[in-house]
Amino acid sequence: MWIETKTEMEEASRTRASFSRRVLNGLLLCSGDMEHLDKYMKDKSFVLQLAVCGLRGVTRVILANNPLSGGLILGALYWASPWQGLLGTLGVLASTLTAVITGQDSVEVAGGHHGFNGMLVSLLMGVYSSAGDWYWWLLLPVFLGSATCVFLFSGLSSFLDRWDLPAAVFPFNIIIILYLLCTGPEHPCFPHHSVKPPGALEPNATELIALQVIRGIPLGVGQIFACGDLGPSLLILGAVFLYSPLLAVHALLGSTVGTLTGLSMAVRHESLYSGLSGFNGALGCMAVGGFFIFSLWTHLFAITSALFSAYADIALSNLMGTVGLPACSWAATLVATLMLLLTGSLAAYRIPTGQVRAPERNLQLRSQWEAGNTEERESADV
Amino acid sequence: MWIETKTEMEEASRTRASFSRRVLNGLLLCSGDMEHLDKYMKDKSFVLQLAVCGLRGVTRVILANNPLSGGLILGALYWASPWQGLLGTLGVLASTLTAVITGQDSVEVAGGHHGFNGMLVSLLMGVYSSAGDWYWWLLLPVFLGSATCVFLFSGLSSFLDRWDLPAAVFPFNIIIILYLLCTGPEHPCFPHHSVKPPGALEPNATELIALQVIRGIPLGVGQIFACGDLGPSLLILGAVFLYSPLLAVHALLGSTVGTLTGLSMAVRHESLYSGLSGFNGALGCMAVGGFFIFSLWTHLFAITSALFSAYADIALSNLMGTVGLPACSWAATLVATLMLLLTGSLAAYRIPTGQVRAPERNLQLRSQWEAGNTEERESADV
Amino acid sequence: MWIETKTEMEEASRTRASFSRRVLNGLLLCSGDMEHLDKYMKDKSFVLQLAVCGLRGVTRVILANNPLSGGLILGALYWASPWQGLLGTLGVLASTLTAVITGQDSVEVAGGHHGFNGMLVSLLMGVYSSAGDWYWWLLLPVFLGSATCVFLFSGLSSFLDRWDLPAAVFPFNIIIILYLLCTGPEHPCFPHHSVKPPGALEPNATELIALQVIRGIPLGVGQIFACGDLGPSLLILGAVFLYSPLLAVHALLGSTVGTLTGLSMAVRHESLYSGLSGFNGALGCMAVGGFFIFSLWTHLFAITSALFSAYADIALSNLMGTVGLPACSWAATLVATLMLLLTGSLAAYRIPTGQVRAPERNLQLRSQWEAGNTEERESADV
Repeated sequence: MWIETKTEMEEASRTRASFSRRVLNGLLLCSGDMEHLDKYMKDKSFVLQLAVCGLRGVTRVILANNPLSGGLILGALYWASPWQGLLGTLGVLASTLTAVITGQDSVEVAGGHHGFNGMLVSLLMGVYSSAGDWYWWLLLPVFLGSATCVFLFSGLSSFLDRWDLPAAVFPFNIIIILYLLCTGPEHPCFPHHSVKPPGALEPNATELIALQVIRGIPLGVGQIFACGDLGPSLLILGAVFLYSPLLAVHALLGSTVGTLTGLSMAVRHESLYSGLSGFNGALGCMAVGGFFIFSLWTHLFAITSALFSAYADIALSNLMGTVGLPACSWAATLVATLMLLLTGSLAAYRIPTGQVRAPERNLQLRSQWEAGNTEERESADV
Repeated sequence: MWIETKTEMEEASRTRASFSRRVLNGLLLCSGDMEHLDKYMKDKSFVLQLAVCGLRGVTRVILANNPLSGGLILGALYWASPWQGLLGTLGVLASTLTAVITGQDSVEVAGGHHGFNGMLVSLLMGVYSSAGDWYWWLLLPVFLGSATCVFLFSGLSSFLDRWDLPAAVFPFNIIIILYLLCTGPEHPCFPHHSVKPPGALEPNATELIALQVIRGIPLGVGQIFACGDLGPSLLILGAVFLYSPLLAVHALLGSTVGTLTGLSMAVRHESLYSGLSGFNGALGCMAVGGFFIFSLWTHLFAITSALFSAYADIALSNLMGTVGLPACSWAATLVATLMLLLTGSLAAYRIPTGQVRAPERNLQLRSQWEAGNTEERESADV
Repeated sequence: MWIETKTEMEEASRTRASFSRRVLNGLLLCSGDMEHLDKYMKDKSFVLQLAVCGLRGVTRVILANNPLSGGLILGALYWASPWQGLLGTLGVLASTLTAVITGQDSVEVAGGHHGFNGMLVSLLMGVYSSAGDWYWWLLLPVFLGSATCVFLFSGLSSFLDRWDLPAAVFPFNIIIILYLLCTGPEHPCFPHHSVKPPGALEPNATELIALQVIRGIPLGVGQIFACGDLGPSLLILGAVFLYSPLLAVHALLGSTVGTLTGLSMAVRHESLYSGLSGFNGALGCMAVGGFFIFSLWTHLFAITSALFSAYADIALSNLMGTVGLPACSWAATLVATLMLLLTGSLAAYRIPTGQVRAPERNLQLRSQWEAGNTEERESADV
């Protein structure tokens, strides 16, 4: 009897272990870049392929590449505002389809590289529009703007390729500025809100509320997708966590640094509360966290990048605010581009643009590669 | 008798045919790039050579390269305003001579590459000057500005050469902006008109006159040379037609697209009537028409380029109008540069910068080249 | 007796000659790039090495590379204002140390390449601050700004290296503009003076005083280090003369051209008197004088460069003045970069960026090199 009971218990514990292992494996399969999905998708219908590369495109904004995270983010956007969700979906589809039609590199299209700029342009057009939700005429500039992003992405990539730099969100930043300049605040068809610079003096400045400022930190991650609600922002943060916990830490850290920077420069309270102070810092931090192999050294470097991005954002916002324009993510994009160009001891940690995976995977590949190198050296010694 | 009459008739018809053939050949000799002229000019005097390369320079503005077209355009400018004609002539001569003195590549100089920026700078200085015609002090900045264009053209060419991009009219755009910034509207020696942005609201907006808008389309081609009269504009269009009928079609089409874009964004009426809405579209359309081999695909692409140029022009005009500056042809130049960088299925139609000829000739060379390739392949197969 | 006296006299004269030769040799050892010092410094302590490369960094601003000149310049700054001297010292140290910590190329660090941008940022932060001298909070942005210069210098160098262009003072110009934009004139912690554009009309314009204008010429050399006093400016000019008399001539000449340009465009009197009109011309002139081998041809070219820099400075000052920003040395830096890109007969005189020495030494190296070439050719002929 005793033996049997023991065997049963062993079996039960084994079953439990194998179950939890299976769950873990399932989670691991769903996190990271999900490269195994590509093989599976090869013989599927065009619509399904488009959906997957659209979802990958959604996550490219935050330097991730995972269709499930993309689904979560889209869900968060629909949660925050169904109209914004619709605009984002249309934007990512319009620009991905334009890329297919103009015959862009199919690997790039499948990786979602042509979707994220169009999505951001659409979302921001919706946010700045003062015509209210469900204003259907807005779909016209949304389609045109998203499609134009493909041309800019392709052209800028050719240009920046000489330094192995990505085109990043430069196309989005250019198109949204051109759109806002084109229409102006009092345009008969496409009116939009005027933008106040963060350094503008407030006539009735009230006391700063610490809790609101802390609430601005996760909002800073949501503001990358122009989302200013706490719930959806936390869901977006969750989506980043699903792709890579390390990246999520960088996002939060960067947003914190950005908010502290905003505090140090005494920007408008609204800017701190809404998370607008934090999102450039978050992007700057994530860019270094994503494009460099993780180590203590690069971590400090990521914080420097967040700091520089946040200060540059305040400066650019003040400059562009004089003509009523927002600084979008110009600061983080410029600073990240600069950081990728850096020489010195940090350059050794830089991952070539085409080989960037989730930070955890980069770390693993690096270890494997170094182990391989050591083995090779050892076998050569023998 | 019958036989003789028949022979006579045959002979007469043959004579007529040979005459029309000769006329056609003569016309064909005068159209396109007139490369045969270069051989003929080799042992001619310096003044004659300078005249020819100056006239070639005049046509480079509209991406053409034909001394006869250049003569027609100069004639059109003198017709519109003798003072403007004189300024244009001096500008093209000043910058070509500066290029000779500073020892620029002689093939480039002979091709008129160093003349067109100087010419545009001079014309625009004349147009923006509020001191009236025949104000001889203006020749000082005209000479200095035209000469500086050579330095900018040479420097920018070195820079852009890495991507096989032309310096295009960047030097003109830079110099004219610097000049206008330097002097300011109320300068004691060189006063100039302040520029109204196209999006500025009109207090007493009248009804739009359709005929005036249609008249603005050919004026858009003339505005490339800062010429706002209908007759001279049509003559300039004729000069483009002489060089290449295809390019003339692109010019008209681009100007139409630009005017429609202006209508869609509700710009000031004056901007539509004067052709200022159309000229960036025309340039954007011609750039793609000139630098890509003609096909249905590239034709659609040229229209896209015109559209993008026109919208970007409105945006930049609104931006630069806030400090009283005109957007010149920044939009078309930037968009055309971007289009030349494009990857994807369109890149296969791109002609290397040094090998661009008239669009018809490009088409012919491509056919020959493809035929040659097929033959080669066939002979290789045997 | 006679013989002895003669011998004595000969000996005396020989002693005198050898003394003056020794003095001359000593002076020659102290002038130029002092490359012999590098060997001597190799086994010295870190602090001494840091001091020398800091002093080299101080002179890099004026395209020189001589620790003694650096000492003189620092002395001049302390003479003009001890607070400014302190800021300059801290700036050069902060950025050099950052370069050491981030593992920048040690040859570059030793040559002072990472010091000069930080120094300029610190000096200009001090000059624009309206909080008065000895405002210790200012050290915070001084340290941060100087440190950030290293990142910008490293990133921009990677970018510009493709055309063998130096990063020059681009980092300084970017950081100071971002700092001024970030803080704004009425910032609670870091207030600063607003900048008047040079083209601004003066309500009570008085007669121009010729002597003051002439006094502005040497001040133009001092203004490179944001120093507006005559004595220290002359000492700075002396420091340039110690490094290279030719460069000092270029500096004065450029400042003169800049002042004349300011006169021709009728800028504000204050701008002429303070030397602010001259310093961009001086920098533009020195850049060509330093990066091209001296000859009559390049001398004319240097004057052209000074002229262009000075006009571009007025234009940019008017543009940036509309948002209350100074043009710093943007004009000279951009023009010098353009000049280094130039093709044509002048490109033959261009010295590769890594091989630039004092102008006199460049001339000598060129002669030696040409002589070597001739000898080689002769020996090859034999």
